[in-house]
Amino acid sequence: MGNADYVYPSTNVECAHRVAIPPPQPFLKSLKNSLKETFFPDDPLRQFKNQPPSRKLKLGLQYIFPIFEWGPRYNLEFLKSDLVAGITIASLAIPQGISYARLANLPPILGLYSSFIPPLVYAMMGSSRDLAVGTVAVASLLTASMLGNEVNANENPTLYLHLAFTSTFFAGLFQAALGFLRLGFIVDFLSHATIVGFMAGAATVVCLQQLKGILGLDHFTHGTDLISVMRSVFTQTHKWRWESAVLGFVFLFYLLLARYSSKRRPKLFWISAMAPLTSVILGSLFVYLTHAEKNGVQVIGELKKGLNPPSIMDLAFGSPYLTTTIRTGIVTGVIALAEGIAVGRSFAMFKNYHIDGNKEMIAFGMMNVVGSCTSCYLTTGPFSRSAVNFNAGCKTAASNIVMALAVMITLLFLTPLFHYTPLVVLSSIIIAAMLGLINYEEAIHLWHLDKFDFLVCMGAYVGVVFGSVEIGLVIAVALSVLRLLLFVARPRTLVLGNIPNSMIYRSVHQYPNANNVPGILILEIDAPIYFANASYLRERISRWIDEEEDRLKTSGESSLQYVILDMGAVGNIDTSGISMLEEVKKTVDRRGLKLVLANPGGEVMKKLNKSKLIELIGQEWIYLTVGEAVGACNYMLHTCKPKNESETWSNNV
Amino acid sequence: MGNADYVYPSTNVECAHRVAIPPPQPFLKSLKNSLKETFFPDDPLRQFKNQPPSRKLKLGLQYIFPIFEWGPRYNLEFLKSDLVAGITIASLAIPQGISYARLANLPPILGLYSSFIPPLVYAMMGSSRDLAVGTVAVASLLTASMLGNEVNANENPTLYLHLAFTSTFFAGLFQAALGFLRLGFIVDFLSHATIVGFMAGAATVVCLQQLKGILGLDHFTHGTDLISVMRSVFTQTHKWRWESAVLGFVFLFYLLLARYSSKRRPKLFWISAMAPLTSVILGSLFVYLTHAEKNGVQVIGELKKGLNPPSIMDLAFGSPYLTTTIRTGIVTGVIALAEGIAVGRSFAMFKNYHIDGNKEMIAFGMMNVVGSCTSCYLTTGPFSRSAVNFNAGCKTAASNIVMALAVMITLLFLTPLFHYTPLVVLSSIIIAAMLGLINYEEAIHLWHLDKFDFLVCMGAYVGVVFGSVEIGLVIAVALSVLRLLLFVARPRTLVLGNIPNSMIYRSVHQYPNANNVPGILILEIDAPIYFANASYLRERISRWIDEEEDRLKTSGESSLQYVILDMGAVGNIDTSGISMLEEVKKTVDRRGLKLVLANPGGEVMKKLNKSKLIELIGQEWIYLTVGEAVGACNYMLHTCKPKNESETWSNNV
Repeated sequence: MGNADYVYPSTNVECAHRVAIPPPQPFLKSLKNSLKETFFPDDPLRQFKNQPPSRKLKLGLQYIFPIFEWGPRYNLEFLKSDLVAGITIASLAIPQGISYARLANLPPILGLYSSFIPPLVYAMMGSSRDLAVGTVAVASLLTASMLGNEVNANENPTLYLHLAFTSTFFAGLFQAALGFLRLGFIVDFLSHATIVGFMAGAATVVCLQQLKGILGLDHFTHGTDLISVMRSVFTQTHKWRWESAVLGFVFLFYLLLARYSSKRRPKLFWISAMAPLTSVILGSLFVYLTHAEKNGVQVIGELKKGLNPPSIMDLAFGSPYLTTTIRTGIVTGVIALAEGIAVGRSFAMFKNYHIDGNKEMIAFGMMNVVGSCTSCYLTTGPFSRSAVNFNAGCKTAASNIVMALAVMITLLFLTPLFHYTPLVVLSSIIIAAMLGLINYEEAIHLWHLDKFDFLVCMGAYVGVVFGSVEIGLVIAVALSVLRLLLFVARPRTLVLGNIPNSMIYRSVHQYPNANNVPGILILEIDAPIYFANASYLRERISRWIDEEEDRLKTSGESSLQYVILDMGAVGNIDTSGISMLEEVKKTVDRRGLKLVLANPGGEVMKKLNKSKLIELIGQEWIYLTVGEAVGACNYMLHTCKPKNESETWSNNV
Repeated sequence: MGNADYVYPSTNVECAHRVAIPPPQPFLKSLKNSLKETFFPDDPLRQFKNQPPSRKLKLGLQYIFPIFEWGPRYNLEFLKSDLVAGITIASLAIPQGISYARLANLPPILGLYSSFIPPLVYAMMGSSRDLAVGTVAVASLLTASMLGNEVNANENPTLYLHLAFTSTFFAGLFQAALGFLRLGFIVDFLSHATIVGFMAGAATVVCLQQLKGILGLDHFTHGTDLISVMRSVFTQTHKWRWESAVLGFVFLFYLLLARYSSKRRPKLFWISAMAPLTSVILGSLFVYLTHAEKNGVQVIGELKKGLNPPSIMDLAFGSPYLTTTIRTGIVTGVIALAEGIAVGRSFAMFKNYHIDGNKEMIAFGMMNVVGSCTSCYLTTGPFSRSAVNFNAGCKTAASNIVMALAVMITLLFLTPLFHYTPLVVLSSIIIAAMLGLINYEEAIHLWHLDKFDFLVCMGAYVGVVFGSVEIGLVIAVALSVLRLLLFVARPRTLVLGNIPNSMIYRSVHQYPNANNVPGILILEIDAPIYFANASYLRERISRWIDEEEDRLKTSGESSLQYVILDMGAVGNIDTSGISMLEEVKKTVDRRGLKLVLANPGGEVMKKLNKSKLIELIGQEWIYLTVGEAVGACNYMLHTCKPKNESETWSNNV
């Protein structure tokens, strides 16, 4: 309390500005504002403002069905481009569809069904111009592993199929609900690092599963982890079929070569895009001509002709496995959303148009709900197919319609052609697609840029490969959330110094040439002061003062008189934080020092005012900038020298 | 890109300081630093530095057993004070101990056992001078409800007793482990608001349970929620015993009166402290003289003479209920810790000494582990008893030893005196103690100060009263964590303006007199840029630019040229955040504007540098302060006027 008899400095120092308390807002208004910021940050209804009702109706229709917006502007040039793109992606969609359906332990024909109806729905409701709709490997694998835990797909295929439809229904419902309720930000919690690690892990797991096809094994583990698969593979060495393996590696080599050449010359994208269909045709011809199906090369066999049968009556809402289907739906739905939205956003960035995440979710959701009633399983916007669509020069979502029509023709007339397609070719197609998902360069980039993100990425990868897909996801999300909590729970406190020849104060760690101010300790708090960090900050501030006093004692410098807290980065404070500041004030007083606040923000000032803490600290000890606070303290130090001080002051501000 | 042909301003504007990239640190060193900050923020080993080994040993012993530190300084004056305080708290401890043991459905004698051994352990290991050790109502109730779900205490008392010892053991183990592993900050996640709501809810529930004793009912619900209790009470109106109720209300009135008078005159604290023992004595005398036990007034009955029997062999590690005991142990252990540490800290604040949270946890943990082996159940530092201890003038933890000795004498010689103590008096004692825990004034204070904290508090209260103790706790912790996540997921972005007659830029919301700078939009981001808010911030920044351009268009002002992002409050950035900034840079470029950064911190500069984003933005467009950034932009606006501009500029900086 040694400084209690000082004159208040604010009246003496020039240029000191008062820190304002923001004008009070009625509770309901501020509640409305913060709800709006939380759920409608993009203000989606802005365009509806001040419009006549007929225009509003039109805008509303265009909002829900973007096809009404771009449809009228559609022209022949667009059609030509979309036709080429649509046929190209259809040639990719057919073999990939069949492969991924097998990955999900579903009848191969479902892959074709799923490339027919959902793209039509998306073409009407989706706002991306480049997204190509279809099934994806990771969601297929997840469906197989989560439903497979409850029902064996080989022993009870009908029940398994119905559960798959039901979980697709719930996935769609969940996706649409997230969009309707403006909760799209849940997807943001799957950070970029999580997705890199998770995708690579899932790709590894999917490749491992293909060892069954490549080696021509009949029995295989139901586990997806590395250890189960390796055990399953190496305990059956006597059952490996070399015919199958040779065929597989030949096609894999061809596919990778095609991709490599497309990568070198982006204009040759069609080589890579057509390669899967070419492989299927060549493989089928080979089997048909050599009768290899009798020599250990498994083939697809009969595929039913005809369009999607309705499956609305197959949705098993009364099943004892309902909770499993809901859980599967939610997990696969979120994963599918994360991929689809990330893909849509990336291509929108390229072409400079805007995508509304919540609207996309509704489109994905509706597409899956309709799909689940028409014998389709979970679809989204896979990266590989959308990239081909983009490269093939698609102009609008009409390329999805073209693809759907091509698949329809296949379903109606061409299914018998797939009878002799060898399974091992499908495995090669999957492996080739998956290897592109293992983005090790990005992982190295993460390591260089942000160690914690790398940890999250590795957590997801190791979790998926050695545990299961869900474990990997939980590890990664938990680590990501832990990081957020740690940021708040252990905020950084920085000591500030004076940048020479200025009134600016910055961290002495970042600016090694910044000078300490004699007699004054300036601390910056880098996070909101909440219950989770209040005790920590109290301890840490005490320790800074201890350390500073020790340092001054050993170096024989003038003793500490003022502690300035720079609150510029303190975005908010709660009641625990207010108590903490009260305690810090008491501690600092007890040590005979003076507590000074610099630059508290609006929220902090409001709380300081309401809690009367502002009077305890003294309004005259709260400054707008650190510079002004230091100026005032220095003024006090020089005009009213404490009795126990004898050194001469060196002032460098 | 309209500004690409401008001259770089930094060479033209005076006084512009370079933003430094902090000196690189080896990975292991920075990892060590951040681990130290997370787990050893208080640097507990500081005093051991540079000391000879013998001194280190002594300090270490004093660190673990603080009694070796204060013991040698103990003197007669201390003893006198501690004797008075110890006897006062013993008089409170005996009736409270019996009451709370009954609340936990345990034999009443356990309450006395628990006030004998644990205080002795704490006196040696604890660092608080004011904490009085004993059982608490909330933990007792929690034990009863969590263990009671598995085993009925009336049907299988021995098993129930053994499970109670086992869960006490695990509670102690967990508490000590938290302390050893420096994870004490977990307790911080129970915020002040949570504890206010939770305690009030628990007190309400405990009072409701006392209706059984007050109304003299034999059968009572096992539920703790308001609805079960009300149904149980009002379906048995014909079994209410008026004798019991009258006795109960008389004593309750006496106890509340005693507390009221003590509150009015703090010097009369002993009236309130002695009131429970007085009630017990008066009640027992009354029953003994009137033989009321034969008229519907239930009494304690036989209490076994003798000290705590060992119970180490009763720990039921092999029991099928092991997981229940572990769960009970962890939940009750955390609750007990939160109360004990909060109490210890509050009194330490009063008397200006320091308490080490992690060390206290080890002390609490050891006290419960030892307790569980000597027929005690969960103990901590209850607020009521510690407050009496403090008011009675205790000087050291020796008052706990005095209390333990008093309880020992009671156990050895005085237990028969409690034979006729009516249960209804115990109920009155509990209700009187509990009413003090319902801190409605604090809840009103929370409402005024921070609406979200009030919501957390009410969530805890309603959850406890209408659901269960665990539900209330989960609601409150989930809401608190949600708040932290929302702070990061939806950070505030503020528009800054110029404070007249200065180079200072602050929020126009907080400072209504701050002026916009023509042609420049200045935004402050108030949180770290992480995956959870990257998409939000991208959208929000676009919207700010949209809104600003709309505003300028309607008001006919000069068009927007620069967007300055004030990064002063951005404590950290992850890889998703870097991608977001890259995208913002592209969007801003596309609109023909220029992106300028002001005051990025050390972590942000490091990441910007590593990701090469610094080159994309241009080092010359990164300034140390907003003022310098605006100065540079203004310089550009005036010297190189864009071609499409014809208005005259009005510059007010």
